[in-house]
Parts: sequence; C-alpha cells; structure tokens
Amino acid sequence: MPRRTIALLTDFGIHSPYVGIMKGVIWTQCPEANIVDISHEVPPYGVADAAFLLETTWRYMPPRTIHVVVVDPGVGGPRKPILAIGDRGVYLAPDNGVLSYVLQSDSCTMVFELTEEHFWLKPVSATFHGRDIFAPAAAWLASGIDAERMGEPLEKPVTIPIARPRAEGSSLLGQVLHVDRFGNLVTNITRSVLENVLEKYGLKGFLASIGTTACERHIEYYGQVEPGVLASVFGSSGYLEVVAREASAAQMLGAGVGTQVLVRFHK
Amino acid sequence: MPRRTIALLTDFGIHSPYVGIMKGVIWTQCPEANIVDISHEVPPYGVADAAFLLETTWRYMPPRTIHVVVVDPGVGGPRKPILAIGDRGVYLAPDNGVLSYVLQSDSCTMVFELTEEHFWLKPVSATFHGRDIFAPAAAWLASGIDAERMGEPLEKPVTIPIARPRAEGSSLLGQVLHVDRFGNLVTNITRSVLENVLEKYGLKGFLASIGTTACERHIEYYGQVEPGVLASVFGSSGYLEVVAREASAAQMLGAGVGTQVLVRFHK
Amino acid sequence: MPRRTIALLTDFGIHSPYVGIMKGVIWTQCPEANIVDISHEVPPYGVADAAFLLETTWRYMPPRTIHVVVVDPGVGGPRKPILAIGDRGVYLAPDNGVLSYVLQSDSCTMVFELTEEHFWLKPVSATFHGRDIFAPAAAWLASGIDAERMGEPLEKPVTIPIARPRAEGSSLLGQVLHVDRFGNLVTNITRSVLENVLEKYGLKGFLASIGTTACERHIEYYGQVEPGVLASVFGSSGYLEVVAREASAAQMLGAGVGTQVLVRFHK
Repeated sequence: MPRRTIALLTDFGIHSPYVGIMKGVIWTQCPEANIVDISHEVPPYGVADAAFLLETTWRYMPPRTIHVVVVDPGVGGPRKPILAIGDRGVYLAPDNGVLSYVLQSDSCTMVFELTEEHFWLKPVSATFHGRDIFAPAAAWLASGIDAERMGEPLEKPVTIPIARPRAEGSSLLGQVLHVDRFGNLVTNITRSVLENVLEKYGLKGFLASIGTTACERHIEYYGQVEPGVLASVFGSSGYLEVVAREASAAQMLGAGVGTQVLVRFHK
Repeated sequence: MPRRTIALLTDFGIHSPYVGIMKGVIWTQCPEANIVDISHEVPPYGVADAAFLLETTWRYMPPRTIHVVVVDPGVGGPRKPILAIGDRGVYLAPDNGVLSYVLQSDSCTMVFELTEEHFWLKPVSATFHGRDIFAPAAAWLASGIDAERMGEPLEKPVTIPIARPRAEGSSLLGQVLHVDRFGNLVTNITRSVLENVLEKYGLKGFLASIGTTACERHIEYYGQVEPGVLASVFGSSGYLEVVAREASAAQMLGAGVGTQVLVRFHK
Repeated sequence: MPRRTIALLTDFGIHSPYVGIMKGVIWTQCPEANIVDISHEVPPYGVADAAFLLETTWRYMPPRTIHVVVVDPGVGGPRKPILAIGDRGVYLAPDNGVLSYVLQSDSCTMVFELTEEHFWLKPVSATFHGRDIFAPAAAWLASGIDAERMGEPLEKPVTIPIARPRAEGSSLLGQVLHVDRFGNLVTNITRSVLENVLEKYGLKGFLASIGTTACERHIEYYGQVEPGVLASVFGSSGYLEVVAREASAAQMLGAGVGTQVLVRFHK
C-alpha cells in the first residue's frame, strides 16, 4: 500500500504547538502517513478564507489525500464534525461551510457526520477537536478504515455563500479572496469566465481596476512589464490576480481580502 | 520496527535555516524517522516558555518519541548536554532547566550527561549544539542505539522554579504561561487544582480576573458566550485559559506571559 | 533504496499555500521522499539571500539530496530552468544566479537546462514553475530517473557577483549577508580568511566594528561575555558573526543585510 498523505489546513498559527500536537496524534496511530502543511496562517476564524485556500490546493495533492481542515469558531458547540468523500480527496472538517467550494468542485457525493467515538481521542475536549476528533479520524482513514464505519450519512452539510463575480453593466465586478506573501491580490474571477465573455461578445481584451486605479495592462508573465508596474495576470490556480512586478500590489493600492475588483472589456 | 518520531522544540524561528539543518543531519543518519515541529517560535532564550510547551505536548506524541529541545542561551559554555528517559518519551536538551516539568510528569528516572563524542558531528561548534550534538544523538537513538551508550548517569539535572498557583486569602493567584495565536491566555492553574478546591470546601464555582477586569463567566465551550465576551475555559491541556470568543483576550486586557490571574471562588 | 531527501528553499512565505502545493506534487509522484524546509522566508525576490542560505546549508543535508530553490522574479519569462549536479547534492533552480555559491563549493561540473516537458506538470503556468517544473522534476529524480534524461547540457549558467571581503588598508572590509532570528549579523568574512591573515602577518587578534561601534571582543562562545555585550564570534557555518549575548546586535546597531563590517587586526 503506498503511503497516504494527510494535508492540514488550520488557523492555529505556527507559534503555538497545536499543529505539532495534531501530527503527534496522527503518527501515533499511523506512522506511515505523509503529512503536508497547506497553511496554518488562515486568519483566525476565517472560514471563508480557508474554504478558498482548500479550493486552490486540493487538485495538487496525491489521489486519496485526507484533508483535515480545522477553522472552527464553533468548536465544542452543536456544530457537527463531518467527513466528505470526493473524487480525488477525502475531507474532514467542522460542518460550518469550510468545505463549500470543494463539495462541488471535487464532486463530493457522500458526506457523513462523524459519530463513532471509538475512533476519537478521549476524553474529547471542548476546545480542540483538531486533536481529539479530526486528527485521529484522519489517521484511522490513512490506516485503511472505511469512512462508512466512522459515522452516519448527512443530508445537507452547511454551506456558505460563495462570492461569484457579477455583471455590472458591460463590466464584471469581483473581489479579492486572498493576498499572498508578495502582495499579489487573488480575485474570485476565473480565467474561464473571462475567456467566455471575450469569446461570446467577440471582444479583444480587458483591463482590471481597483478603486480609481487601473492596471496598465493584462500580462501573461511578470517579465512583460517593468518592476513596480501594476498589471493583471492569471495566477497559477486560474484566478485573475492584480499584481505589481517585484512589488506589492496590496500595499500600492491599500487593498486586501474583500476589496472590489472591476474588469472592463474592450474591442 | 515502526518508524520513530523525533519532535523538535526550539527558539530558532522559521526565518533562519537552523531547523532545516537539524533535519538534514537527522535524516542523514536515520532517513526513516518522522520529524514533527512542536514550535520554533519559543521566545529567544525562553527556557521557561519551552519547558511549559513541552509539558503541554509530550503526552500527544507517539510512544518512545525522541524530543529534542534546543533553547540554549549557554551553548558552548560549561552547561552539559543531557538525555532523560521517561515512561513515554526520551528527552535531549541542554542542562538548563528546560526539562523541569517533564522530568516529573513523565517520570524520568534515568538522566545521562551526553559524553560519547563518537555520536556527534565534528568539529563541534561553540554556537550550534542543536546541529552538532542533539540532532545526531537523536538520530542514533532513532536508529536503535541504546541511550546508555551515549553518556554517563547524571545525578541532579538543573531545574528551574515551576510557577505554581498560590492561595491568596480564599482566592487562588496564578499567572499566564503562554499566549496562543488567538490571544487566549493559558494560565498555570489546572483543572484538577480548581476542582479539588471546589470539592474540598463545597463551593459552587469561580470567576477569574486579570487586573480589575473579571471574566463574565466560566464556560465549557466558546459558543456559550457572545463574540467578544471575556470568559474562562479549561483549555485542551487541562489548564485554565482566559479567552474572548472570536477575539483576543491578550489584546483586550493588555496581558501576556507573566501577567497575574486571580481566581475567586463563590458558593 | 534509502529514502531520498528533497530540500526546499523559497521566498513563498508560510502564509500562502504554495509550499504545501509543491509538497503535494512531489508526494504524488514519489511518496517515499523526505521533504525538508530550509526556509520559505527568503526576502521576496532575494536571489542573493537565497544563494547564501543555500551555501550555509547544503553540507548538512543527506548525500544525494535534491535541492529545489525557487526564488524566481523572472518566472514565465526567458530565464531557463536548470539542474546542477554536485559532489554531494543535486540542485534545481531558475537560471538566475541563485546557485552561484554552490556551483563552486559543491563542485557542480555538470549543469543541464531542463527541457524535457514530459517530466513537468501540464499546462505549465507562467507564474508558478515551482509547482509545474521544479517539484515534479525533483520527484522524478527522487524516483530514480537520471538527470541526463531531463534536459540538455548548459555551458554557462548565470552567476551573480559574490560579495567577498576586501582589504581596506591593513583592515578587512566585509558586509552582513544574513540576520538570524536572534539578531545575529552573519557576515561574508570566513574564519579561514581571518586565520590566514593572522598567520601570514604574525598578528595576535582582531576586532570587528560596524559604523562607529566596535565589538568589545572576539569570543569563542556566548558565555564569555555578559548579556547585552557586543562581540564577534565564528558562527556555526564558519562565518564571522557580530552578536550580542541574549540580545539583538541588529537592533543595537541598526544593522541589516548589506551593512558594512570592518575588521581591524592588532599585534
């Protein structure tokens, strides 16, 4: 059996030992698992941020990767722990909407509520289900236990509204979903949406702007503009990004998660 | 033989390559080891901080985990490198008190001074024993070498005073030992100490306060109060925490490591 | 076959999921690889910084480690992806000078341009060759594919000027190449250069200074001075460092990468 991968995505931060504790729990049960850190710097309680990060990463994980997503402001309360089975991956998370994108994009047809306490660490704390429920469940899955044995089918997992770009006259209005370390502004406008509009209306191109500042042009790669120039580019996950070569677009524009981005088309 | 886990806890920070170097040294000798990062963001030279973090994590690591704790302001000087063998784990560290909690809690009856230079990287530098002594010793242990072969029994390892809560009239006075990423204030007051007091004196409950600000109530999980409300809760390691739901108690109170926490009991 | 190590050095930051994505791509192809993070906090676009960090770390990685260095301001443009084979390690990187030190120090006699797209992830994006070219190439190498099959010999890889210390009268003028978490200032002046000068001219010692502030003395280990005192010491990689015991020399001196350091010799 090839080594299974377990991918962790949390808002725990790297300062605190919570992530290391989860890894200890996983390797106690399944020392053969590979563990990959997607990010632990999701903004605290940032359910929507984590949902989007998961959407941009799951395709690149090995087949049958077990994703553990712990951004969990309702921990210890009535929200359920769930498990979703997609075409490529398996997803463990609190039922708070953090799987909203991936339930669709990875075609998760089976969702379970985790109910079988046999697979948990006991006593289960009221504040750290990452350690007590999700990490041990992931390790049992990686050891070969069937998901079906871990809980009961769940009809309707919680979803959060997914911010889709919308038409604004003949333009498209989107928003920033993520700011990376370089200050690149990753928007919710996909390459396929833009290319569809261009093709459908026989248009030649487009220009993105934030507030009153427009990008100088749309580029294919950074080297096409001078350092410091504002441009748009399709990022590596297929989303339109507003960037500045070797500079921070976020800083230049005072923009961040939630900032609106307008795309105007031209002939 | 199942894969051994080596757990790293340092104040090296993630910016610098020191942790990666230690992993390279470990995997050079023992490529089969699993390596888990507990934290590398211990405050620089924070021996007491690291001692407490180790105390809250060792129980969750796989049995026979080899802990490497390098918070080492006296590196290169006369302080000894030591190895302690507990019921669950094995601990490599400078002899500066960083094992003070775990020597008791994991019942470390055998402590050795590392003296066998055969197991070290040479020449041993005066500034990086994590690379030259502790990492290779951990790798040799993970490869199956007996701890007894690595050094000489040590009678009295150095310990630091452990800050225990103390009675203050009919109240209990403790202090903050750790602040996590969410701004939760982890105190040195354990659930068992509080429950003993409640039972012994037939009391009904308690309220924690910091400075002139009292928590609104003690809760079992975050959802029991509104966002932003100050409360106390037993954290996942059994320590009383002063928290604010979906907000930073540390920021609200201007509190940090060392801040005093008063617990008043009531009937 | 023993497990191969793949060492990652990037400027991606740990906030963003880019590093996790690269690990997913690697483990999809080669789940048996060990992956070590050297640093992902290289200053954005810091080619020279990464070149120096690589120089201070490659010796400590397991033999035949595959290094993946992605600091790549020219990604998507005409700069080539390359592979260099050294005595100890193998190095994958953009051809932008980031291998300048290691090409010499690890005696890399064979350098290839990566041209065989068969080993890449497709479609290759214009912004993330770490994911699409370097990570999969590393995984194929770790799986046993010969480097020769991945591309064509390259005559002259790009190099950047390496800042060497220079004589300034009877003194030596160097500069700070790296500041670690403790505020230690790692310079480009090596122990061997200094010892050569001492021996050649029959000198007794030296004193380092930054701006108008001189170190109190040169020490062998931190404990030789009082806390807070400025001193120089040979760091663990053989470079002269300006340090302050249990304090930040960087902060005390307002110094950082690029700051000049003067070493005056005395009889």
